[in-house]
Amino acid sequence: MLTKTLLKEIPADCAAEIKALFGERFSISPPILDHHGRDESPYPLLAPQAVVFANTTEEVAALVKICDRFEVPIIPFGAGTSLEGHILPIHGGIALDLNNMNRVIAIHPEDMMVTVEPAVRRKQLNAELKDTGYFFPVDPGADASIGGMCATRASGTNAVRYGTMRENVLALTVVTASGEIIRTGTQAKKSSAGYDLTRLFVGSEGTLGIITEITLKIYPQPEEIAAAICSFSSVTEAVNAVIEVIQMGIPVARVELVDELAIAAINQHSKLSLKPSPTLFFEFIGSPHSVQEQAQHAQEIVKTHGGQDFEWAIHPEDRARLWHARHNAYFACLQLQAGCRIINTDVCVPISKLAQCIDETRKDLDGSWIKAPILGHVGDGNYHVLLVIDPDKPEDFQEAERLNAAIVQRALRLGGTCTGEHGVGMHKIDFLVDEHGAAAIDVMRTIKQALDPKNILNPGKMIRV
Amino acid sequence: MLTKTLLKEIPADCAAEIKALFGERFSISPPILDHHGRDESPYPLLAPQAVVFANTTEEVAALVKICDRFEVPIIPFGAGTSLEGHILPIHGGIALDLNNMNRVIAIHPEDMMVTVEPAVRRKQLNAELKDTGYFFPVDPGADASIGGMCATRASGTNAVRYGTMRENVLALTVVTASGEIIRTGTQAKKSSAGYDLTRLFVGSEGTLGIITEITLKIYPQPEEIAAAICSFSSVTEAVNAVIEVIQMGIPVARVELVDELAIAAINQHSKLSLKPSPTLFFEFIGSPHSVQEQAQHAQEIVKTHGGQDFEWAIHPEDRARLWHARHNAYFACLQLQAGCRIINTDVCVPISKLAQCIDETRKDLDGSWIKAPILGHVGDGNYHVLLVIDPDKPEDFQEAERLNAAIVQRALRLGGTCTGEHGVGMHKIDFLVDEHGAAAIDVMRTIKQALDPKNILNPGKMIRV
Repeated sequence: MLTKTLLKEIPADCAAEIKALFGERFSISPPILDHHGRDESPYPLLAPQAVVFANTTEEVAALVKICDRFEVPIIPFGAGTSLEGHILPIHGGIALDLNNMNRVIAIHPEDMMVTVEPAVRRKQLNAELKDTGYFFPVDPGADASIGGMCATRASGTNAVRYGTMRENVLALTVVTASGEIIRTGTQAKKSSAGYDLTRLFVGSEGTLGIITEITLKIYPQPEEIAAAICSFSSVTEAVNAVIEVIQMGIPVARVELVDELAIAAINQHSKLSLKPSPTLFFEFIGSPHSVQEQAQHAQEIVKTHGGQDFEWAIHPEDRARLWHARHNAYFACLQLQAGCRIINTDVCVPISKLAQCIDETRKDLDGSWIKAPILGHVGDGNYHVLLVIDPDKPEDFQEAERLNAAIVQRALRLGGTCTGEHGVGMHKIDFLVDEHGAAAIDVMRTIKQALDPKNILNPGKMIRV
Repeated sequence: MLTKTLLKEIPADCAAEIKALFGERFSISPPILDHHGRDESPYPLLAPQAVVFANTTEEVAALVKICDRFEVPIIPFGAGTSLEGHILPIHGGIALDLNNMNRVIAIHPEDMMVTVEPAVRRKQLNAELKDTGYFFPVDPGADASIGGMCATRASGTNAVRYGTMRENVLALTVVTASGEIIRTGTQAKKSSAGYDLTRLFVGSEGTLGIITEITLKIYPQPEEIAAAICSFSSVTEAVNAVIEVIQMGIPVARVELVDELAIAAINQHSKLSLKPSPTLFFEFIGSPHSVQEQAQHAQEIVKTHGGQDFEWAIHPEDRARLWHARHNAYFACLQLQAGCRIINTDVCVPISKLAQCIDETRKDLDGSWIKAPILGHVGDGNYHVLLVIDPDKPEDFQEAERLNAAIVQRALRLGGTCTGEHGVGMHKIDFLVDEHGAAAIDVMRTIKQALDPKNILNPGKMIRV
């Protein structure tokens, strides 16, 4: 699956220069290398040749200048929660571990923004924001690093209401491939000043620059929150209910689909007793009256689509338990089969095509031996099929990839994208070409080659050079 | 002000090839040239050497391929409402008039999106959307073309609620500098598939590619709308009221500041009798109950900041009259002085700095002979000083530019941007460097040179090559 033929040793002079700067924060200890050679993707371990732990933007810049001279690849490493092999050093090189850069630098509640270092985790950020009355909504489930979430343009359950990292990053500090430090964006909420470098680096997966500081939007903590679950006799009914809720303009905070197989896994993993049928998880936020209005309107729509057992979770602890269960669905599904791994699909389609898309996919999946629970941020048209495979069985891999390819091609035919939120990494490089066409990929490649002419920044990811 | 030394004649062979393709839609008739040599900026007429009227994306691509071979500049032309000289052919070349491409191609209410050709005007789009129950919110005042609004990353009065063109463009068709046709984005609401080319072209001012098709988000027409105006004894009080309204998270649809001088101009131009003091224009939208809730909350806040005469405009015709007056403020101010032009500043700062920023600016302006009404999309931290000048008086130009520079430098010191929505054009090229720093400008220049190596796409705008 992975070719090691491209691996180059780090030149001894290069290693010596880095060691002189970073001392013990330059490591070639095998356990440390191994720790940086695996993420949440199903790819096997592939360790880097060295790991460097940087403490500051200036240190990152100094490292990049050395690697630029010696043409040694650099792969930024945060929480290691990538699902698409983003952090695997397939051309060898140095894993740049940013986890020492984990400070919330400044909170500006009066401007509803916060500036953080890249290794700040999502949960840590919200813990630090808690007493300010604000929160950061983007929530991909995993306790990812904010830098990694920028790199993959992450989103998750709240995106239907608050948008993705695309909408919620105001400004960045970035170290370029030549080791220059640049700032993109300002603290102003909007700007027409020049090319939108912020949005160019968000979603660039470490291939154009290394993000070392991030300014994010934050939002007032909702006055009132209500969660509800509701079960359906089919996924199609559930999806049609969501489509109408969205089309009616009800500003749901979250609306998640969990199919019967995933519910069963969740019940087992989280010790719950949810009805094992396709289920929607809703969350409504706002003023008490507005929450009531939204919830009532949604409940009426859901009923007309056959929704049953609309059940409320008003108390914070009940709500937390529900969403905790939803967030752990991925890990719950990892226990559907002993020793399994998961190939996670991630297509996103226009909402009007979602029922058709999931329907046809379900039929595909029913014809296969691979267990395949479905989860979805369905309010955005984004859903995941968790293809549960035995990593020791090549036929499982092959079958899962066949299913994945069919799911992607279907989504593209329906006007969608091959990845709603996980990114391209190693896994979707060819799908990216199918999605955008050769001419648009040429434009992306031109940008990559212009900004990283020696191809040292996370080479081999997203785009072939 | 403009140097003509860089103008090159269009080679005869080039003109012949274009004429063979476009026939009478290739024009060198002086009145037509002149029509394409002026926008709403205070720059004097500078006519292109030829004008081409394209009907399709393929025609645009064919034209660009010819111009690429002969290295002839192309300047896209839509509504001609630029305030920063974007459409002036300062290196000579061809104005590419896109006004024949003015079809709304497809409306997808079920996915809340619409696809249009670039010359579709904002008002035309909303007229065509009217019966669908949806609307497109971005509203820069002028009846600009959607293509031009993409090119400058426009925003306007509704941005405080709905975001700018940055947030509201889903996908583009673009002709590159080599005449390739690419599509950026899909119909999916979100995506992590590759570099965000959509956001790179939005705001690129015609310098990276020519936008020939745009897919936009649309939104349900609000169930209930209420507008109100409220006057204050000082601009500072008004701004402080807005800051608190925004910080309290009240989802106002619009909140606009108009100072006493602009109110006087509006009264005269729109035959109104508003109290000549600093005034806020509010709009609230939502369900009837939510509008009431928002309005009441806002009214309470406004009162604590000395707001007086909170006056409602519930009836559509009253509302329309108010907002029509606000939208025509620019034209009203053009009548403050016979034969005048306006240099319009456009800074945007973090909301917490807005009162200080406008305060200090007001003091600057009070020390000058230039009439300078202030308007602002203050909910976003964006305000305009309309510097009213006599175009025949070089000292007026000089004084206005001195004031403009001071306003920009102040905004940058306060963490803001030199342009919130009008773009850079010719006018803010140096400010752009001040804002982003040389290293970030180098990244922008690298992108420009990589994607337009012969510098034929709107050369001389935004960035020096």
